[in-house]
Amino acid sequence: MANSQARRSQELQKLLRHQSLDALLVTSPADWYYLTGFTGEAGALIVDLRHVTLVTDGRFRVQAAEELRGVRVVEHKDGLYRSCGELLKSLRGKRVGFDPNQVTVAQYQLVKKAAGKATQLKPIGGLVASLRARKDAAELAQMRKAALLASDVVESAIGLLQPGVREFEVAAEIEYQMRKRGASGAAFESIVAFGARAALPHARPTAKRLRKNELVVLDLGAILGKYCSDITRTVYVGKAPARIRLWYQAVLEAQAAAIDAIGPGKSGGEVDAVARGVLAAYRLDQYFVHSTGHGLGLEVHEDPRLAKGQKTQLASGNVITIEPGVYIAGLGGIRIEDDVVVHQGRSEVLTRASRDFIEL
Amino acid sequence: MANSQARRSQELQKLLRHQSLDALLVTSPADWYYLTGFTGEAGALIVDLRHVTLVTDGRFRVQAAEELRGVRVVEHKDGLYRSCGELLKSLRGKRVGFDPNQVTVAQYQLVKKAAGKATQLKPIGGLVASLRARKDAAELAQMRKAALLASDVVESAIGLLQPGVREFEVAAEIEYQMRKRGASGAAFESIVAFGARAALPHARPTAKRLRKNELVVLDLGAILGKYCSDITRTVYVGKAPARIRLWYQAVLEAQAAAIDAIGPGKSGGEVDAVARGVLAAYRLDQYFVHSTGHGLGLEVHEDPRLAKGQKTQLASGNVITIEPGVYIAGLGGIRIEDDVVVHQGRSEVLTRASRDFIEL
Repeated sequence: MANSQARRSQELQKLLRHQSLDALLVTSPADWYYLTGFTGEAGALIVDLRHVTLVTDGRFRVQAAEELRGVRVVEHKDGLYRSCGELLKSLRGKRVGFDPNQVTVAQYQLVKKAAGKATQLKPIGGLVASLRARKDAAELAQMRKAALLASDVVESAIGLLQPGVREFEVAAEIEYQMRKRGASGAAFESIVAFGARAALPHARPTAKRLRKNELVVLDLGAILGKYCSDITRTVYVGKAPARIRLWYQAVLEAQAAAIDAIGPGKSGGEVDAVARGVLAAYRLDQYFVHSTGHGLGLEVHEDPRLAKGQKTQLASGNVITIEPGVYIAGLGGIRIEDDVVVHQGRSEVLTRASRDFIEL
Repeated sequence: MANSQARRSQELQKLLRHQSLDALLVTSPADWYYLTGFTGEAGALIVDLRHVTLVTDGRFRVQAAEELRGVRVVEHKDGLYRSCGELLKSLRGKRVGFDPNQVTVAQYQLVKKAAGKATQLKPIGGLVASLRARKDAAELAQMRKAALLASDVVESAIGLLQPGVREFEVAAEIEYQMRKRGASGAAFESIVAFGARAALPHARPTAKRLRKNELVVLDLGAILGKYCSDITRTVYVGKAPARIRLWYQAVLEAQAAAIDAIGPGKSGGEVDAVARGVLAAYRLDQYFVHSTGHGLGLEVHEDPRLAKGQKTQLASGNVITIEPGVYIAGLGGIRIEDDVVVHQGRSEVLTRASRDFIEL
């Protein structure tokens, strides 16, 4: 990966020149991994027009030496952000960008004070995010594997849905199966929601036992080789009433229409509107209480976002989730989610578990 | 928990009066859970001198209704932080605190703009953290369970250390065992480091296989009933050379001395110095590249910190880790970590796995 990381830093330096910036302060672990390959949890990266410098501490000395090539490493003693500020001062960089969505007010104040008056700190969000949003071939290869892993795991979890099993038991099996297949962990706390709990889009697994005639929502994702996947399937335990079949059909149609609408140049808002439009035709749009999808990569939520009014245009290499759902308090919910790569001409669905309505 | 949460909000309101604040903006999920019991992932809390208001979105409507008592819920439509600002404006609160370590520059700007000029935003960190640092009886009861769970899991993981096993296989078993015992998940990505990899204090599990004559560091924690535990044990696979026995002895003595030094009124820096002093007597202090410990609770790293020069005094009800270690590049590392409650008179070690040197 050393070559691709050097190329990414060069791409970023181009963006800096384009923004008339002399340097960028990078404080997100996913961003610094993307740019350098450093997997430590504490530090900050300063990318100027010629160099990349990692500021970290003694805990990561050995790791930084092993992982980094062509990156200067500075070990701070008395505060990470003060050191970053001092480094920016010594670089004599006049205009230094930082992402206001990543930097806290306290960090900003520390950097500002140490950098001195000659350094102008400029809030400019999304520079590294814009690079990360378009995955290269190696990243897509990794994300295909992560998506297949999640697809296998969701299918094996459906096999566990016997009446009497508890939500957290299924969650334990899900995360164990991910790990056994080589994932470094779950991309987020797995959602296993039975019956009325399925009406909570972000339900956490509880000790609740599965009963006959309940909806089950399984939403899980694995991190494999640093890249995330994210898949949701909804099944019914028993013979589903007609209205539940109808809701499922509506969500499935909304998802298919949104996937069809994906393409370079389409805005996130347009794709969201397509999903919402299908649900409106079923008079279910009021129960679709979240956005249609989000970018996926080193983090489980990244650019681009597919939400109402989102104007950012999709581009080749984006990997996004498409996950419409309906949630009816007291009754349950239905969500179907897949991971999709935006390509010129055709979209590529990475997740592979069947979307047919399953009655167990 | 509804009563204890109401009491916590009242305690916070006392702190606000003491700081001459009219309200506090609370943006950390662990803080808002502590104050209200709300388990949703997206939102913000505004605590004024008489009311507690949660600002969230439609995804959490059902959950908020189920979980909250005595808390007003506002659903925002066009931006969480803008809504918070508008609410602060309508409260006519003149001085509103926020934690500069929690609030990003972008969030600050959105709140500031919507709140208008009559609202003064005051960076005041650590108010909720200071309450959270002193656990009440119900919290301690929960943390005892979380610590016992982690102790059981580390002992069962040691049982898996046969030559040939891979780091990530052990990590998978660790997290599975946590889940099977009722944990909602790992408090952090479990560390399973074999041989030279044990020299990385924050090593991530890899496909590396265990060989004879290697050190193994296992560092894991469980979240049980929302509260975290954190334990580290180091074992040797084979018959350990004399110097490794000596290093182990040094780390164990450093830990015991630090635990002995704990008490209300002692500063974090004093306890850290005790551990460092023992290692210095063995000429190993240069290999102790991190701080001695940290607070533990709803989050795995919270107040108080036990690091060089830390002046904050320990208080009854604090729960802290004590985790000295030595790390020698190319050879491996040794760390021993337990969770300890600060009480008047005596400290209480919550984790229970044996600290004797184990040769497998």
